[in-house]
Amino acid sequence: MFGRTARGEPKSMAEAVILLSGGLDSATTLAMAIDRGFTVHALTFNYGQRHVAEVECAKLVAESMGVASHLVQTIDLSAWGGSALTDDIDVPKDGVGEGIPVTYVPARNTIFLAHALGFAEAIGSSDIFIGVNAVDYSGYPDCRPAFIEAFERLAAVATKQGVAGHPARVHAPLIDMTKAEIIAQGRRLGVNYDLTISCYDPTEGKPCGECDACRLRASGFAEEGV
Amino acid sequence: MFGRTARGEPKSMAEAVILLSGGLDSATTLAMAIDRGFTVHALTFNYGQRHVAEVECAKLVAESMGVASHLVQTIDLSAWGGSALTDDIDVPKDGVGEGIPVTYVPARNTIFLAHALGFAEAIGSSDIFIGVNAVDYSGYPDCRPAFIEAFERLAAVATKQGVAGHPARVHAPLIDMTKAEIIAQGRRLGVNYDLTISCYDPTEGKPCGECDACRLRASGFAEEGV
Repeated sequence: MFGRTARGEPKSMAEAVILLSGGLDSATTLAMAIDRGFTVHALTFNYGQRHVAEVECAKLVAESMGVASHLVQTIDLSAWGGSALTDDIDVPKDGVGEGIPVTYVPARNTIFLAHALGFAEAIGSSDIFIGVNAVDYSGYPDCRPAFIEAFERLAAVATKQGVAGHPARVHAPLIDMTKAEIIAQGRRLGVNYDLTISCYDPTEGKPCGECDACRLRASGFAEEGV
Repeated sequence: MFGRTARGEPKSMAEAVILLSGGLDSATTLAMAIDRGFTVHALTFNYGQRHVAEVECAKLVAESMGVASHLVQTIDLSAWGGSALTDDIDVPKDGVGEGIPVTYVPARNTIFLAHALGFAEAIGSSDIFIGVNAVDYSGYPDCRPAFIEAFERLAAVATKQGVAGHPARVHAPLIDMTKAEIIAQGRRLGVNYDLTISCYDPTEGKPCGECDACRLRASGFAEEGV
């Protein structure tokens, strides 16, 4: 569909794969990847999430920014559940707390990056973008620099292109930015945040306003004076 | 389905997740996991592979060995292709050569282990079994000890259970065995290899006899005197 097997050499330094969720972080990351000159292929997952409304937002965001291609893949993380986002566990709405909340989805970013790694290698790209953030976030372990670095080390030994000396780079340009800084950056680059949704528990596509994701988004916009 | 979120502590030291393909290596690995006292949950992928006949074999193997559960998940690695197993590229039939062959599927074992990691964490298990082998194999980078070690280091920082001090262990008991040794081990443990298939390019469920997987299997059985 997108070409032939990677032979170890990236087909073009300017192609990249981005994990696009439909939220504000990944929309901003997409704008930054395009701004850096990459031709971007977007990858979105319908993974059995409670907030599947985000998939429609991802389509709107991808279209509005002119990606080279957008794949929406279905995987079923609700088969084993274990998270408020994929199982019948209530989404907490009493404010961002300490520790790792029940909205954590087991190994989600490992799974997403693994698929992105396969996609990138198949199209001859060694650049992957992900909108993780370790400042204004829900405390998920797979949003931290240590995770991104460990994934890059894995990719270097896991793939044909890695063994050939062209390991995948995982770009996480938001990782040490505040939510307000992310929004400011996105506004400079023309991101239309009206197309995005951050809520973990929307009703008919409308955000609840009370979950961690809604609170972090609202305080980011407030701090940025929007 | 299988329980609640892992809280960091394994629910039982005796539960494990195994990646089961329907081939002889993973069938032997399953027998070894059961022999070691684990209650085993099997995970099989219908990933768009040419040799989807292996999925039916995986079901027979899982049933014959009495697994605690068997999940068959559908993911679509043929969306990007890039391999003779997931794209319209011919499977080589002229003998096992040097280098990484075109049957290599970009990031396949990274993707499979990532899903297994999520499954294991969700059911409170920190033991994952995979039947990779780095002796009589097709030269895939994601079958080597360096890959398994890098994945374990990733899992330690990627998951809630890892951060809580219970990182997932990836057991690859076949990794330094010859194909004949694997078969001998499986026969001691009562594996019915008639239920397995190793072929990359079967026709109506019958092995081609000429691809790398068929050749490695045949020479293993011959060496073992079967």
